[in-house]
Amino acid sequence: MCRFLAWTGAPRFLDELVLDQKQSLVEQSRNALIGKTPINADGFGLAWYGDHGDRSTPCLYKDTHPAWSDPNLKQLAQHIKSRLFLAHVRASTGMATSRNNCHPFAFDNWCFMHNGQAGGHELFRQKLEMLIPTELYGSRFGATESEAIFLIALGHGLQTDPIGAMARAVAEVEALAEAHGQIPFMRFAACWSDGKRLFAARMASDRFAPSLYVCTCATGHIISSEPLDDGPEKWVEIKAGTAIEVTPDKIIHHAFTADSTVTPDAA
Amino acid sequence: MCRFLAWTGAPRFLDELVLDQKQSLVEQSRNALIGKTPINADGFGLAWYGDHGDRSTPCLYKDTHPAWSDPNLKQLAQHIKSRLFLAHVRASTGMATSRNNCHPFAFDNWCFMHNGQAGGHELFRQKLEMLIPTELYGSRFGATESEAIFLIALGHGLQTDPIGAMARAVAEVEALAEAHGQIPFMRFAACWSDGKRLFAARMASDRFAPSLYVCTCATGHIISSEPLDDGPEKWVEIKAGTAIEVTPDKIIHHAFTADSTVTPDAA
Amino acid sequence: MCRFLAWTGAPRFLDELVLDQKQSLVEQSRNALIGKTPINADGFGLAWYGDHGDRSTPCLYKDTHPAWSDPNLKQLAQHIKSRLFLAHVRASTGMATSRNNCHPFAFDNWCFMHNGQAGGHELFRQKLEMLIPTELYGSRFGATESEAIFLIALGHGLQTDPIGAMARAVAEVEALAEAHGQIPFMRFAACWSDGKRLFAARMASDRFAPSLYVCTCATGHIISSEPLDDGPEKWVEIKAGTAIEVTPDKIIHHAFTADSTVTPDAA
Amino acid sequence: MCRFLAWTGAPRFLDELVLDQKQSLVEQSRNALIGKTPINADGFGLAWYGDHGDRSTPCLYKDTHPAWSDPNLKQLAQHIKSRLFLAHVRASTGMATSRNNCHPFAFDNWCFMHNGQAGGHELFRQKLEMLIPTELYGSRFGATESEAIFLIALGHGLQTDPIGAMARAVAEVEALAEAHGQIPFMRFAACWSDGKRLFAARMASDRFAPSLYVCTCATGHIISSEPLDDGPEKWVEIKAGTAIEVTPDKIIHHAFTADSTVTPDAA
Repeated sequence: MCRFLAWTGAPRFLDELVLDQKQSLVEQSRNALIGKTPINADGFGLAWYGDHGDRSTPCLYKDTHPAWSDPNLKQLAQHIKSRLFLAHVRASTGMATSRNNCHPFAFDNWCFMHNGQAGGHELFRQKLEMLIPTELYGSRFGATESEAIFLIALGHGLQTDPIGAMARAVAEVEALAEAHGQIPFMRFAACWSDGKRLFAARMASDRFAPSLYVCTCATGHIISSEPLDDGPEKWVEIKAGTAIEVTPDKIIHHAFTADSTVTPDAA
Repeated sequence: MCRFLAWTGAPRFLDELVLDQKQSLVEQSRNALIGKTPINADGFGLAWYGDHGDRSTPCLYKDTHPAWSDPNLKQLAQHIKSRLFLAHVRASTGMATSRNNCHPFAFDNWCFMHNGQAGGHELFRQKLEMLIPTELYGSRFGATESEAIFLIALGHGLQTDPIGAMARAVAEVEALAEAHGQIPFMRFAACWSDGKRLFAARMASDRFAPSLYVCTCATGHIISSEPLDDGPEKWVEIKAGTAIEVTPDKIIHHAFTADSTVTPDAA
Repeated sequence: MCRFLAWTGAPRFLDELVLDQKQSLVEQSRNALIGKTPINADGFGLAWYGDHGDRSTPCLYKDTHPAWSDPNLKQLAQHIKSRLFLAHVRASTGMATSRNNCHPFAFDNWCFMHNGQAGGHELFRQKLEMLIPTELYGSRFGATESEAIFLIALGHGLQTDPIGAMARAVAEVEALAEAHGQIPFMRFAACWSDGKRLFAARMASDRFAPSLYVCTCATGHIISSEPLDDGPEKWVEIKAGTAIEVTPDKIIHHAFTADSTVTPDAA
Repeated sequence: MCRFLAWTGAPRFLDELVLDQKQSLVEQSRNALIGKTPINADGFGLAWYGDHGDRSTPCLYKDTHPAWSDPNLKQLAQHIKSRLFLAHVRASTGMATSRNNCHPFAFDNWCFMHNGQAGGHELFRQKLEMLIPTELYGSRFGATESEAIFLIALGHGLQTDPIGAMARAVAEVEALAEAHGQIPFMRFAACWSDGKRLFAARMASDRFAPSLYVCTCATGHIISSEPLDDGPEKWVEIKAGTAIEVTPDKIIHHAFTADSTVTPDAA
């Protein structure tokens, strides 16, 4: 399991959420309060969007040391200001500690990060490789089921149907896990973005969907695996089986099922 | 392309070949004299066999920094004495600089290292994954074609037919490359071992098989991508299309073709 | 604070203590039961002695990732058998996570590892550099007070008076800390060796000396920051203000004060 | 020896100089054309200034792998746009490959990078530590003479006299080297900045000052260890014994001697 957070709203320095909160993401890397793994120290990653019209891809910074001891992470978080960013600390469920297994993953202007697992992944790793669309395999850099889900979702049309395609990808991997019989077949909390909207979803094949919260503050919205501070009334739990679509000015709720569809972004 | 060397014979400290020769492997990491890439600094690896009957697997030490700057490599090479060891410095042909992409690769008591390429690998990476036997996919840790060839060879019976199985694996990957049309389809120099015998082979689908030499000295045999010193008469080139089987007391020459077979080790 | 263990006795595989115990050193890297810092994931190190008469220095393997995720550590621990070894997992008290700040430290045939702190180190770092004998400064590789204490002890005659010299070095650094006024002036648990004998000591300028235990088993002795298993009766606490000198066949108790002296090793 | 470049002028993406030139800095990391060490692969670093009035310190990104294989470097260079940045690739002259030994070094709004050496540094490392002002020792993170020169220059008043203070620091370290008698006493090419102006200087105690060039283009100025492209007429060599002060709109030439002074920045 892992921990993550994301921001959309007025540009702000990353360290305000990644480092400076009571239960900041870096604090969660050594002492997560919710979830199975208090230590999330098998690497980390940042993805942020800038305002350079000609370069709309997110900038990725990922590395393999614990987030708490990486001086580059501290430097970047203190100096980068962004209107939309994602940050992740990893607790491996089996695959190696390597940069390519760190989240977020990116493809064109899209990026994705995940907390969860597909039970028995080690039993069907090769079959999972086969589910990745061949034309996207050049973007298969690591060995996690998380990156695979992202690429499969892209194959299902993530770019035009951001929630439905993700739900179908998750269902496909869940079915693969179920065929191999090792529970839990799927536990999934994730967050993804095209650089304009932030999407988040939560589901599980059993009653234990990984934790996921959204918090609305004066200048934007935070999505986070766990509340960053002691103001619990602000932190709204995203319900299992649902997804949200977040822009600076509003949150739209969706079911998170293979039948879900979201109107393509008009812009 | 990469550089490598191996030893079988009387136990000796690794540094005698890895560090202390005029053209030692570490020197080749920054200044290879033969081959396309003078710099081989995208990681390195060691595999050595001990004499602990109950633990017959090779010990692997692999890391991602240039060999010349890794103090652990220097420490280990100065303190480990072994009767049979392999050492490799990597120049990536595309895949990431990560520990799991460093050679040698190991499976049970076998290990393998490689210098070469399958042309257009990036075009058929997913198909190459499919050639790996499913029952061995749990040992697919990285993304190189080198590791894939090793696992495919294991599927072809490497443990009982160490040269023929390797030749068939190489032919299979070569055919895959040929089907995608990007030359050179296969350039291959490799060295592998079961902990008792050392095997080495050299071939190419064109006229440019990667360099490979064998040198017999008083206490054993060295296999190396290039001569380690200025005594050229000692360094015998292994001919393209051939393989050798080396034990401390002799060298047996074989053709390296899909039809080759080697009598299983009697021991 | 950090965690460590050491072995002297019949040769054994390192993994038996580093990996395979209920509360093994790797387990302590993520879940130490005693001490202030349950997570000790700012690097680790091994030092082991071989039986190659011509190379009597210890072999060091140190790296900066958490011990639990380092595949090289696992490989080495599974394949290296040694009659005398030291192993350490680090929790930084301020200095960077870098290989040169990882323990054990070595000089000739001696090596040293430490758990503790000198209060206000950041205030007198430069003065501490000055305490290191000039002729040993070429062996000052990192920035920790631990390495400084080792080099200062060498300057006080560690090689002929292994306990008294260490006690004088600790007293000297303690006095420096006291002059800067930040408590605790000194907390110290350490283990060091010349390749024949293992020394361990424990002291503090207050009542909170870091934990340290010794356990005698059939084939030798274990020194450890905390018991490795649930057999508490076997684990004898080393008292604050004392040191022990351990050889495969006996344990000699000493006071650990600046006046202590140990008869030089006759061998 | 090392290689570096810097930019001041209209904001531009870092990759335009770091990655995309014929003889870009990353190309220089494996194939420098001028200087003693064609390979500069012992780490690298970036420092760039943003336009966030409240955070005027440079952002540092430094790591220990070769620049050519670091995906984070590529990501940052492709996404960060800056009006003033410095970039460096390192070839160690003895000290370890560690992040804290990578350039640029920073203190408040100042940063500094260096190519050169003080002959016999290993003989007077401890004395060099003593030259660092005690009140700045908390910013002594690594072990290079380069970082020491920067901190000594800060002690000499770098912030108010950016060229004279640097020249005095260099003279002080040169005198220390001379006292130990190992030539060359000082070879020095460096670049430093307060976030507004870029300074560069070149000198040597013998006739072999490290190479250093300045190039004026339409939107600003480049300082570089070697020309980045085949337009030699644009690349003006900075003469040994001189320094330049560069702002987007002009270049001021100075002697680089202990007597040099620069009028403090009026802003």
